[in-house]
Amino acid sequence: MKIAVLGTGAGARAHIARLAGLGHQVHVGTRDPEATLARTEPDMMGTPPFKEFLAQHPGITLHTFGDAAAASDGLVISGIDGHNAVAALTAIADQLAGKTLVDYAVPYIYQHQSEHPWPTPWGVMPKLDPCDTDSLAEQIQRALPDVKVVKSFVTQEQTTVVDPQSVGGGDHTMFVAGDHTDAKQEATDLLKSYGWSDILDLGPLVCARGMEMYAHMHSAIGFGLGQQFGGHFGIKVVR
Amino acid sequence: MKIAVLGTGAGARAHIARLAGLGHQVHVGTRDPEATLARTEPDMMGTPPFKEFLAQHPGITLHTFGDAAAASDGLVISGIDGHNAVAALTAIADQLAGKTLVDYAVPYIYQHQSEHPWPTPWGVMPKLDPCDTDSLAEQIQRALPDVKVVKSFVTQEQTTVVDPQSVGGGDHTMFVAGDHTDAKQEATDLLKSYGWSDILDLGPLVCARGMEMYAHMHSAIGFGLGQQFGGHFGIKVVR
Repeated sequence: MKIAVLGTGAGARAHIARLAGLGHQVHVGTRDPEATLARTEPDMMGTPPFKEFLAQHPGITLHTFGDAAAASDGLVISGIDGHNAVAALTAIADQLAGKTLVDYAVPYIYQHQSEHPWPTPWGVMPKLDPCDTDSLAEQIQRALPDVKVVKSFVTQEQTTVVDPQSVGGGDHTMFVAGDHTDAKQEATDLLKSYGWSDILDLGPLVCARGMEMYAHMHSAIGFGLGQQFGGHFGIKVVR
Repeated sequence: MKIAVLGTGAGARAHIARLAGLGHQVHVGTRDPEATLARTEPDMMGTPPFKEFLAQHPGITLHTFGDAAAASDGLVISGIDGHNAVAALTAIADQLAGKTLVDYAVPYIYQHQSEHPWPTPWGVMPKLDPCDTDSLAEQIQRALPDVKVVKSFVTQEQTTVVDPQSVGGGDHTMFVAGDHTDAKQEATDLLKSYGWSDILDLGPLVCARGMEMYAHMHSAIGFGLGQQFGGHFGIKVVR
């Protein structure tokens, strides 16, 4: 398939590499391809320059967000951060129309530590916006009624999402939510190709609220396990 | 041990019955014992009158919140709802001083459906308050600095908390968080006596935010499993 991945951070790279390895034609979208390729230093998360990643993954094409979405034949994966996602996606509504958009972003608002109400022994937790009475996924769906939005992947580090067997032999649970059954099936098929066997459909997109708010629990579990940021674990729903 | 359970709803009853079964002397607290005993109809959640429960569980004593807390020799379990917990507990600060308070309440604000922003196919989800930048457990701890607050139990139905083996043979995870190591150990010992083998200490009480916010994910998983309210499942952290 021709699949678009919007974003060039560590999470997006996990999907890009895995999709390419599965034989898909991957079209990567970024706000400003020239600027992305011009970077020579690691980003604020310590992720190496995207140019290095591209050199290690031949065959990947870097586009603008819109060109990447246009090149997709149906499936678009978006890790665009919550602060920018609605605006960036609305700007390419025509290229996304009719397609399935899997959004995995946590709508964190990063603030300076001194301004932030959640100081912790390990640093500062970002605030969520929206939270509780709305979700980023629902905001995207409302802004783009012609797109079929699915929330998924968000309850795990993306390195684990693309390689579930790396934790507990893959015996843990992935979740999907959305208002379009066919789109959820596409996301589910993709997850199966990644190696997931336990994929739970939570129901309508309103369930994205719980999935996004789980981010703080995910962080707390990682810290509880002594893994700090980027925890390597899964969550299994035990029936 | 002499253990106080504050609350008379279905969750509190699960703990009361289990603690009594384990041989503890259980002191139950309610706002107005006479009013609690006078009820002859099920409550809004369909829970039968407490008087019926007492008749089936001889040896349980019903007190005011303050008298129940005073009767405890160290451990107090509170399921007082988030809307009332801080005021009700502050009013009995003297009786709680120096003791361990395990708070398992979800700070839901129940609203009339027409006023609520989260209508779902299955009804209405309550809003959380506090949420994201604070938690009920932290509010209680700030209001009662002489009490050792532990957040736990909140990620499961209380019927499963007191009987973990009833789901997946007990192979799932319970969490504790708090700023007092000795109090977390007391809560952990209690959980072990309930049958828990995997109890993860998430760290300081700030982690109660993630635990309380998980409520929406818990509801979504229950709905995804077709269990509606009161889902019978557990969550296992797979390392």
